Amino acid sequence: MNEAYLKNLLTQLQLGKLDIAQTVDTLRRLPGESFSEVQLDHHRMLRTGIPEVIFGEYKTSEQLVTILERMLTLPTVVLATRVSEEKATQVCERIADINYHPVARMLTGNRHHIPTDCSRGTVVITTAGSSDLPVAEEAKLTLEYFGHPVETIFDAGVAGIHRILNRVPTLQKATAVIVIAGMEGALPSVVAGVTGAPVIGVPTSVGYGTGAGGYSALLGMLNSCSPGLAVVNIDNGFGAACMADAINRK
Amino acid sequence: MNEAYLKNLLTQLQLGKLDIAQTVDTLRRLPGESFSEVQLDHHRMLRTGIPEVIFGEYKTSEQLVTILERMLTLPTVVLATRVSEEKATQVCERIADINYHPVARMLTGNRHHIPTDCSRGTVVITTAGSSDLPVAEEAKLTLEYFGHPVETIFDAGVAGIHRILNRVPTLQKATAVIVIAGMEGALPSVVAGVTGAPVIGVPTSVGYGTGAGGYSALLGMLNSCSPGLAVVNIDNGFGAACMADAINRK
Amino acid sequence: MNEAYLKNLLTQLQLGKLDIAQTVDTLRRLPGESFSEVQLDHHRMLRTGIPEVIFGEYKTSEQLVTILERMLTLPTVVLATRVSEEKATQVCERIADINYHPVARMLTGNRHHIPTDCSRGTVVITTAGSSDLPVAEEAKLTLEYFGHPVETIFDAGVAGIHRILNRVPTLQKATAVIVIAGMEGALPSVVAGVTGAPVIGVPTSVGYGTGAGGYSALLGMLNSCSPGLAVVNIDNGFGAACMADAINRK
Amino acid sequence: MNEAYLKNLLTQLQLGKLDIAQTVDTLRRLPGESFSEVQLDHHRMLRTGIPEVIFGEYKTSEQLVTILERMLTLPTVVLATRVSEEKATQVCERIADINYHPVARMLTGNRHHIPTDCSRGTVVITTAGSSDLPVAEEAKLTLEYFGHPVETIFDAGVAGIHRILNRVPTLQKATAVIVIAGMEGALPSVVAGVTGAPVIGVPTSVGYGTGAGGYSALLGMLNSCSPGLAVVNIDNGFGAACMADAINRK
Amino acid sequence: MNEAYLKNLLTQLQLGKLDIAQTVDTLRRLPGESFSEVQLDHHRMLRTGIPEVIFGEYKTSEQLVTILERMLTLPTVVLATRVSEEKATQVCERIADINYHPVARMLTGNRHHIPTDCSRGTVVITTAGSSDLPVAEEAKLTLEYFGHPVETIFDAGVAGIHRILNRVPTLQKATAVIVIAGMEGALPSVVAGVTGAPVIGVPTSVGYGTGAGGYSALLGMLNSCSPGLAVVNIDNGFGAACMADAINRK
Amino acid sequence: MNEAYLKNLLTQLQLGKLDIAQTVDTLRRLPGESFSEVQLDHHRMLRTGIPEVIFGEYKTSEQLVTILERMLTLPTVVLATRVSEEKATQVCERIADINYHPVARMLTGNRHHIPTDCSRGTVVITTAGSSDLPVAEEAKLTLEYFGHPVETIFDAGVAGIHRILNRVPTLQKATAVIVIAGMEGALPSVVAGVTGAPVIGVPTSVGYGTGAGGYSALLGMLNSCSPGLAVVNIDNGFGAACMADAINRK
Amino acid sequence: MNEAYLKNLLTQLQLGKLDIAQTVDTLRRLPGESFSEVQLDHHRMLRTGIPEVIFGEYKTSEQLVTILERMLTLPTVVLATRVSEEKATQVCERIADINYHPVARMLTGNRHHIPTDCSRGTVVITTAGSSDLPVAEEAKLTLEYFGHPVETIFDAGVAGIHRILNRVPTLQKATAVIVIAGMEGALPSVVAGVTGAPVIGVPTSVGYGTGAGGYSALLGMLNSCSPGLAVVNIDNGFGAACMADAINRK
Amino acid sequence: MNEAYLKNLLTQLQLGKLDIAQTVDTLRRLPGESFSEVQLDHHRMLRTGIPEVIFGEYKTSEQLVTILERMLTLPTVVLATRVSEEKATQVCERIADINYHPVARMLTGNRHHIPTDCSRGTVVITTAGSSDLPVAEEAKLTLEYFGHPVETIFDAGVAGIHRILNRVPTLQKATAVIVIAGMEGALPSVVAGVTGAPVIGVPTSVGYGTGAGGYSALLGMLNSCSPGLAVVNIDNGFGAACMADAINRK
Repeated sequence: MNEAYLKNLLTQLQLGKLDIAQTVDTLRRLPGESFSEVQLDHHRMLRTGIPEVIFGEYKTSEQLVTILERMLTLPTVVLATRVSEEKATQVCERIADINYHPVARMLTGNRHHIPTDCSRGTVVITTAGSSDLPVAEEAKLTLEYFGHPVETIFDAGVAGIHRILNRVPTLQKATAVIVIAGMEGALPSVVAGVTGAPVIGVPTSVGYGTGAGGYSALLGMLNSCSPGLAVVNIDNGFGAACMADAINRK
Repeated sequence: MNEAYLKNLLTQLQLGKLDIAQTVDTLRRLPGESFSEVQLDHHRMLRTGIPEVIFGEYKTSEQLVTILERMLTLPTVVLATRVSEEKATQVCERIADINYHPVARMLTGNRHHIPTDCSRGTVVITTAGSSDLPVAEEAKLTLEYFGHPVETIFDAGVAGIHRILNRVPTLQKATAVIVIAGMEGALPSVVAGVTGAPVIGVPTSVGYGTGAGGYSALLGMLNSCSPGLAVVNIDNGFGAACMADAINRK
Repeated sequence: MNEAYLKNLLTQLQLGKLDIAQTVDTLRRLPGESFSEVQLDHHRMLRTGIPEVIFGEYKTSEQLVTILERMLTLPTVVLATRVSEEKATQVCERIADINYHPVARMLTGNRHHIPTDCSRGTVVITTAGSSDLPVAEEAKLTLEYFGHPVETIFDAGVAGIHRILNRVPTLQKATAVIVIAGMEGALPSVVAGVTGAPVIGVPTSVGYGTGAGGYSALLGMLNSCSPGLAVVNIDNGFGAACMADAINRK
Repeated sequence: MNEAYLKNLLTQLQLGKLDIAQTVDTLRRLPGESFSEVQLDHHRMLRTGIPEVIFGEYKTSEQLVTILERMLTLPTVVLATRVSEEKATQVCERIADINYHPVARMLTGNRHHIPTDCSRGTVVITTAGSSDLPVAEEAKLTLEYFGHPVETIFDAGVAGIHRILNRVPTLQKATAVIVIAGMEGALPSVVAGVTGAPVIGVPTSVGYGTGAGGYSALLGMLNSCSPGLAVVNIDNGFGAACMADAINRK
Repeated sequence: MNEAYLKNLLTQLQLGKLDIAQTVDTLRRLPGESFSEVQLDHHRMLRTGIPEVIFGEYKTSEQLVTILERMLTLPTVVLATRVSEEKATQVCERIADINYHPVARMLTGNRHHIPTDCSRGTVVITTAGSSDLPVAEEAKLTLEYFGHPVETIFDAGVAGIHRILNRVPTLQKATAVIVIAGMEGALPSVVAGVTGAPVIGVPTSVGYGTGAGGYSALLGMLNSCSPGLAVVNIDNGFGAACMADAINRK
Repeated sequence: MNEAYLKNLLTQLQLGKLDIAQTVDTLRRLPGESFSEVQLDHHRMLRTGIPEVIFGEYKTSEQLVTILERMLTLPTVVLATRVSEEKATQVCERIADINYHPVARMLTGNRHHIPTDCSRGTVVITTAGSSDLPVAEEAKLTLEYFGHPVETIFDAGVAGIHRILNRVPTLQKATAVIVIAGMEGALPSVVAGVTGAPVIGVPTSVGYGTGAGGYSALLGMLNSCSPGLAVVNIDNGFGAACMADAINRK
Repeated sequence: MNEAYLKNLLTQLQLGKLDIAQTVDTLRRLPGESFSEVQLDHHRMLRTGIPEVIFGEYKTSEQLVTILERMLTLPTVVLATRVSEEKATQVCERIADINYHPVARMLTGNRHHIPTDCSRGTVVITTAGSSDLPVAEEAKLTLEYFGHPVETIFDAGVAGIHRILNRVPTLQKATAVIVIAGMEGALPSVVAGVTGAPVIGVPTSVGYGTGAGGYSALLGMLNSCSPGLAVVNIDNGFGAACMADAINRK
Repeated sequence: MNEAYLKNLLTQLQLGKLDIAQTVDTLRRLPGESFSEVQLDHHRMLRTGIPEVIFGEYKTSEQLVTILERMLTLPTVVLATRVSEEKATQVCERIADINYHPVARMLTGNRHHIPTDCSRGTVVITTAGSSDLPVAEEAKLTLEYFGHPVETIFDAGVAGIHRILNRVPTLQKATAVIVIAGMEGALPSVVAGVTGAPVIGVPTSVGYGTGAGGYSALLGMLNSCSPGLAVVNIDNGFGAACMADAINRK
C-alpha cells in the first residue's frame, strides 16, 4: 500500500465514492495482518517505499500459497525470492496469476501494479562471470517490478579487462551500478574507479577452494581501494536491487 | 580537477584569457603525476566525481608534506585520512594552510574549493554509541568538504529504542543515511525499517570479546532483515561519505 | 525421579504401603542405569530439577526405542529432541504412547507426569521471523512438559519495529523472555531494552551468505548493548527452555 | 530513576510537599538528556530495572567527569566499567565522591542509593582460576550496587575437581550462579550438572595459543552438555551481573 | 613386515631353510611396492612399529580390493579405516577373508597375525556421550589388532560427573587413556586431573550450532588446564590408537 | 587464436590466398564474441599465451554444448574443467569430437592443435597421497594440451620420506615442479628444499576434521620454510598447470 | 606431596618418630590450601604424579612471592612458567632460593627435590628452527625438574631434510620425542615417520602473515599423515613436557 | 657455496694450486655447520641454487653478529631479512662490511659475490599502493643480490586502472612479474590477464578493518579468475624473489 494509493483512497472518500465503512475496512489492514505464525507488514511501503517481499527459502509451498493469495488482492506488485523449482511448481499449480522465473528463482505477480515514472535514471547491472547470472536475474527482476529501467553488462571479469573498459560510457551514465562477482570479487573496484555513479557490490558464492561460499569476493569488495562502493550480503541480488531502488527513486 | 574547472579552463582559452601554452601546462598534469613511489591520480575527479584523497595511515610525515604541498596548488579541496596526532603535528608545523581535526584524525586544506550547489538533499549521519564518534566525524568532514549538507543524530543505539524512533521524520527526509555502529550493529536494521532513503551501514571496531575488531557489527549489517541497506568496511567513515556523495550528487 | 516423588516414596514406606525390598528396588536405579553404551542419569532430576532428556540427533531408531521404552516406566515426562521425521515414524510404529511433533522435531510421552504449580510466572517466547518457528516450538514444547505457562509473539523482527513495540506490556509482565532470531539477531537487544525480565537469546541458523549457520545472529546477541541478556547455542531451543525453567521454577 | 522513586515523587506532589513546577522539573529529565555527543537514558531504570551504567572503555577522562558529575545528582547508584587506572586517577582527583576499584576496573558512587530488600536470594560467583579474578570482581561489585547478596568460590577449575564438588551445597542453594572461566571453559558444565539454579557462564580471555582471546572458553560454554546454562560475551562480568540481577530481582 | 619377522627370515637363511634367492625375493619388497598410483610402504613397520594401514575414505572399492588382496599375503594384520558401508559390501563380496565392522567403519583381516605379549599394560578408552561410539570403536579395534588389551568407560560426560568419578581406579591403573568427546570436550580435562597416565584427547564432530564439526571440542582439549594431555585430529580414533600403541608398546 | 596463427593469416593475405573480406571476417572475432550471457575472450591467447579454457562447474550441459561447438571451429585446443560425469555424458552424446576424462573431470577436443616445440624442459608433477590423483590428472592433461612434456611421482608423502628422496635427480632436472598434497601439505617444503626448480604447491581438500576443505594444506604451503615455492588455490590443478606453462614456455 | 613422601610420613608414624598430632598437621594440608583467591592443589602429585606448577602469566610479582615462599617449604620441586623478566627480577630480589631462566621464562627452586630413578628412558627434544628455542627450553627444564634425562636436536627443519635424517638413530632410541616447530609445522610428520617412539608435537607462534600465531603449525601437526603423533597447544612446552613425563615415568 | 665455486675449487686441486688438506678443509664445511642452537645449511646453494639467507625476525643482535661474521668469510652474498632498525644499528656498529636498508629492513654484505650472467631476462616488480613499498624493496634487493635485472612499476592499483594498462608492454616483456598488493589484492588478476609471463602475487598486510593482516588480499589472489598466477605468504617479498629467481635462473 504505497502513498499514492493512500492519497487516492482518501480522495475517493472526500468525493463520496467511498463511504466511511469501506475506507475503514481498507485502513484497518494498514499496519499489517497476521496469518498463523506470519505477520505481514503492509505498512512497510508507506514507511520505506519498498513493498513487503516474501523470503521463500524456509517457507513451505503451503505457506507460500496462503501468503501469495492474500497479497494478490492488495494494490502492489507481488514478489517471492529464493523459491526452489520444486516448491514453485506446486505454487503455480494452485495459483493462476503467479509466474516462476527459474534462473532468478523468483515468483512474481500483479505485474499491472508496477509503478511508472518513479525513477531518476537507469540502473546498470554487470557481472564478472556467466555463473553469476542467477544473482543478476534476481536483481534485475526486482528492479523491473519496482519500476526501474535496467541495462546489463554480463561476463566482463577483470581477466579480460577490455570487456568492461569498452562499456565505460554506459557505466558513467547510470544513476546506480550493481556489480556482481564471485571468486576474487575485483570487478567492483575497477568499475568504481571509472564511474561517478554509486556502485553496489554483490559478492557471489561462485568459486571453489578458498573462494567457496563467497568470502573471498566479499572481502575483496569491502577492502576496495576505489571509493564510492558499498556492499550487500553474499548472493543478495534482491538486497542490491532494494539499495538501487532507494537511490534511484524520485 | 573537476568537470566545472575543466570547462572553465577551456572557456578562458576561448576568451583569450589563457594562451595555448598555459592551457597545455595545466592539461599536462591531467592523468596524474608521480612523486618517487607515489602516482597521484588527478584524473579521478573527472572520471568519478571524487577527488584524490590521501590515505595517511602508512605514510611518513615526510611523504605527507611532499604530497600535500603539491595538492594545495591544485584547484580542489585537500584531504588526508587516518593521520595520527603525532604525524599531524609535524605536518602542520611545516605547512601553514593545513588544519588537523583530532577526533576525525584528518588533515584538510583548500577549504575555499568546497563545491557549492552540488547536492540533491541532506545526508543524515547517526551513531549507536558515543564511542563511534571518530568514524562519524571522518564521514561528516569528508561530506562537508565534498559540498553536502549534513545532519547528525548521535548515541541513539537500540538499547533505548526511543532515541532513534523520536527522529524518524529526520530520517525520512534524508537523501541518504549513514548509520555507524559497533558491538551488535543493529541500528542500521532499525533505521532501514523506518526510512525510504538508502542506508549506508558502517560497522565500527568498538566492542570487546567477540565484538572486538568490528566483525560482529559487520555481520549484523550484512545480514540485516531490512532491505535498502549496503555496507562499507569496518571503521570506514570516509568510504561511507564517498558512497553518500555519489548518491547525493546532483 | 524428582524430589516430590522421592519424598512420596519414603512416606509410603513410613506408612507401611511399601516394604523395604520394594523401596530399595526403586532407589537402586537412582544414580542411573546403563544400556549397552548408554548411561541414563536418573539422578539428574534430583540434582538439577531438569529431567534426563534424550538427544536424538545421532541415535538410531533402535536406540531410541530401547531408551524410550525404559523411560516410559519412570515417574517423569519423556522427551527426545532433534528426531528426524523418518526416525520418528519408526519409533511411533513401535511404541504406542509416544507422540511426534514434526515442527519441533520432538518425541514426547508421559504427559500425565507434567508437574503442576511449579512456576513463578509466564515465559514469553518471541521470534524474529517465521523461519525461526521450529526452534520456538522446541522451546515451547519443552517448557510445557516442564510445567510452565508460555505466551508467544511470532514474526516480530526489527525491520518492522512496531510489531514488537506493540507487545511491550506482555514482555514486561514475563518472568523470563526467550527471543529467537536468525540473520542479524538484533531482536534480543531491542527486547532487553524494554523489559526487566531476564532475556535468553537463541540465535538460529536461518540466513544465507555470511548469515548461514547462525554465527552472525550469535555474535549479534553476545555483543548486545542491552544488559540483562544471555545466550545459548545456535538453534538450541531446548537449552533456552531449560534456562527459562531454572529461572522460572518456584 | 526507579519506580519507587517515581511513586514517591508523585506522592509528595499529592501531599503538597512539592508543587507542580518542581515535579515537572524532575519529570522533564525522565526520557534522558544529552551532553554534546552523549544521550543519557534515565528512563532505562523504569523500563528494565537496570540503571544507566557508564561504559568507560572508549571515553576520555574529560567525558567521564562530565557524565559522572551529572549522574551523582540523580537518585541512583553510579557505576562506570572498564576504566583504566590512569583515567580513574584523573577522575578521582576531580570528583570527591567517586571511588576506584582497581581489580574490577570500576568507578562507583552514590553507595547510599543501593536498593535494599530487592532480592529473591543469593547469587554465587565462582571462577576456574585466579587469573579470572578481575571479571569476577566486576560482576561482584555490580551485583552489590544493584542490591544483591553475593557468595564466592574462587580458583576451583576442573583440573582439581574436588575443589568445586566440595561446594555443591552452596551451589544448590543459590538463586543464580555466575561461573567465570578461561582456557577450556569447562567449569560451567560441571556446575550446571550439580545445581538446579540457572547458571550464567562468562568466558574470559585468559589463555594462550588457541586459547588467547577467550574463544575456546566461549565455545566450551555454548556447547555444554549440561542444560540450564546461558552465556554472555567474553570478559563480560558486568553483563553476567545484569542477567543475575534480572533473575534474582523480586 | 615387523622386526621379529625379519629376524626370523634371516635365521631361516642361516639355518638353511631358505636359500639366498628366496630371501632376496622377500627382501626385495622391503622398501614397499607400487600399484599404479599407490606406493605401499612395507618398510614402515620396521621403522615405526606401526604397520601400513589403508585410509579408505577417498579410495574406490576397486582400489581397496587390489590393495587388500596384496596385503593379505603379507605377514601382518590388515586394516582399512573410514570405509563406507556401501564400499565395504562390495569389497567383502570379492574377498573372503575380510570382515567389516559397521560402527567403526573398518575392514580387517589376517587376525592370526595380531602380535602377542607386546604391551606394557592396559589402554582405557572413555567417551563423553553415546554418539562418540564410532570413534571409540575405531580406536578399540585398531588397538586390538595391534595387540593391546583395552578397557572401556562409555557415556560418562561431565553433565553427570559421578559417572566418570566412579571409575577413577580404572583410570589410575591404565598405561594410557584415550578420552573421546564432542560438544564442549571437557571430559579429558577432568580425566587428566585424576590420573597419572598419559591422556590422549580425541575431539569428535558430535554437536550442532557452534559445536558442529568438532572445533569446540578440539579447542577445549588443546586449552585444558590439566597437564598430561595431548590431542589428535577431530574424529581421529585411529590416530589416538596409534599414539596409545607407541606409548604402550614394550 | 595464437600469434603464429595470426601471422599466418596475414601472410596468406599478403600472398593473395585470402582476400580482404575473408581476413576481416576472421579478425572481427579477435576480441572475443558473446553468446547470450557469455563473452568468449579469444584475444587471451595473444595477450597471455594461455587459450580460453571453459570453467565447467556452474555451466549447464546446454551451455557447454553451445560454447564447445563454437570453440571446436577455432584454431586452438579445447578444454573444459570441473565437468561432472553426468553433464559430460550429455555433452559427449551431442558432440562427437569431445572426449571426457573422468578422473581429471575434464572435456577435451582439437587434440591436433596441441602446440609443438614450445617448452624449455619437463614439468614434474608429484602427489603426497593416492587421493590427490584427480588434481594431478587435471594438471597433467592441461599441460599436455598446452604442449609440455610431463613426468610424474605419485603417492610420495612425508610419512615415508624415502619415497620422495629416491627421486631427487628427477626433481633437480625439472624446469618446474608441481607438488600436490592434502592433509598437512608438507611435501612441497621437502621438495623445494632439494631442487632448484620453481615449485608450485597445490593444496587439496583431501583430509578430515581440521584438514577438511584443504586449509591446513594451504597454510602449510604458504608458510613453508623452503624458499622457491608459490601456491595456487585449493584443488586448482588447472591453475598450477597454467603457472607451469608460463614458466616453461619458450 | 608425592606417594613416596606420604609412605615415608606414615612409616615415621609407625616407627614412633612422629606422633599423631604432627602427622595430622601435615596431612591436613593434603587436599590443598587457599591463599586469598588462590587454591593450591597439593593433592595433585598423589593423583597424577605431576606436582602443582605455577602458571605465572597473569600473576603479579606479589602473588608469585606469596605462593613460591609457601611452596618452597614443601617436599617438592618448585616451578613457575611464563614469568616475564621484569616480574622475575622482582621475585628473585625477594626470595633467595629461586632461580630465573630467561630463555625458558621460568622460575625454579628446590632442585634437591628432583626425583631420581623415575624414568623408563630418554626424552628427545627437537626443534625446526632456532626461533623455537624458548619453547624447547621450557620443555627441557620442566623434564629435568621432573627427573627425566633429555637429549636435544635443534634447528633441524625440513628445508634441509638431511639435518634430521642424520639423527634417526637418536630418534629411534627415545622413549618419547617432543618436536617443536612453527611456520608450516612439518617436522613432526617427518619424525613420526622414522621412529616408533610416541611423538608430541608443539606448534609455535613463530611465523608471519598466515603463519602468525601458530595456527598453520598447529593444523599441520593435527593433520599429519604420520601416525603416532599427538599435539599440545601452541607454544605449550610445559604441556609437552608433562605428556612426556606421563609417558616416560616408571 | 655454489656449483661454480665447487668446480673451481676442484680445478685448483687438479692444477696443484691447492693441496688435499686445504681442499678437504673447505669441503668439510659443505653440509653446513652448527653454532650453539643454529645449524647453517651451506649445502643449500648446491641443492637449490638459493644461498642460505638469515631470517632475522626472532634473532637477537648477538646471534646476528655471530652468524653474519661467519657467513662473510664464505664465497657467497650475505643477506638477512626482517631486521628491525634497532637491531640493525647494533649489528652495523660491530661489523664493518654489512649495510642496512631501512625500507627493505634487510642487512646485506659480500656484494662482490653477486653472480653475473645467470638470468634469462628481467623481473618486473609492481605495487598497488605506495604503502606496499617495503615488501617491494625486500623483493628487489634480494633479486639484485641473486644477480637478476629488475624493473619497477609502483603505485598502480586498480582504482586508477590506466596506471597499470599504460605499462602493458613492460609487463609482456618480463620473464617473471611480482605483483604486490594489500587491501582487495586485485592487481595481480589484472596483470595476469595482460601478460604471458608467470605472475607471483604477494599479498601485503596493508589495510584496515576486514583488510587488516592481509587475508583479504591473499584470498583475492588465490581466487583470481586469471590463470598464470601463484601466490606466496603475506608480506613475503623475499619468498616472491626466490620464486622469481628459480624461474629466471639460466
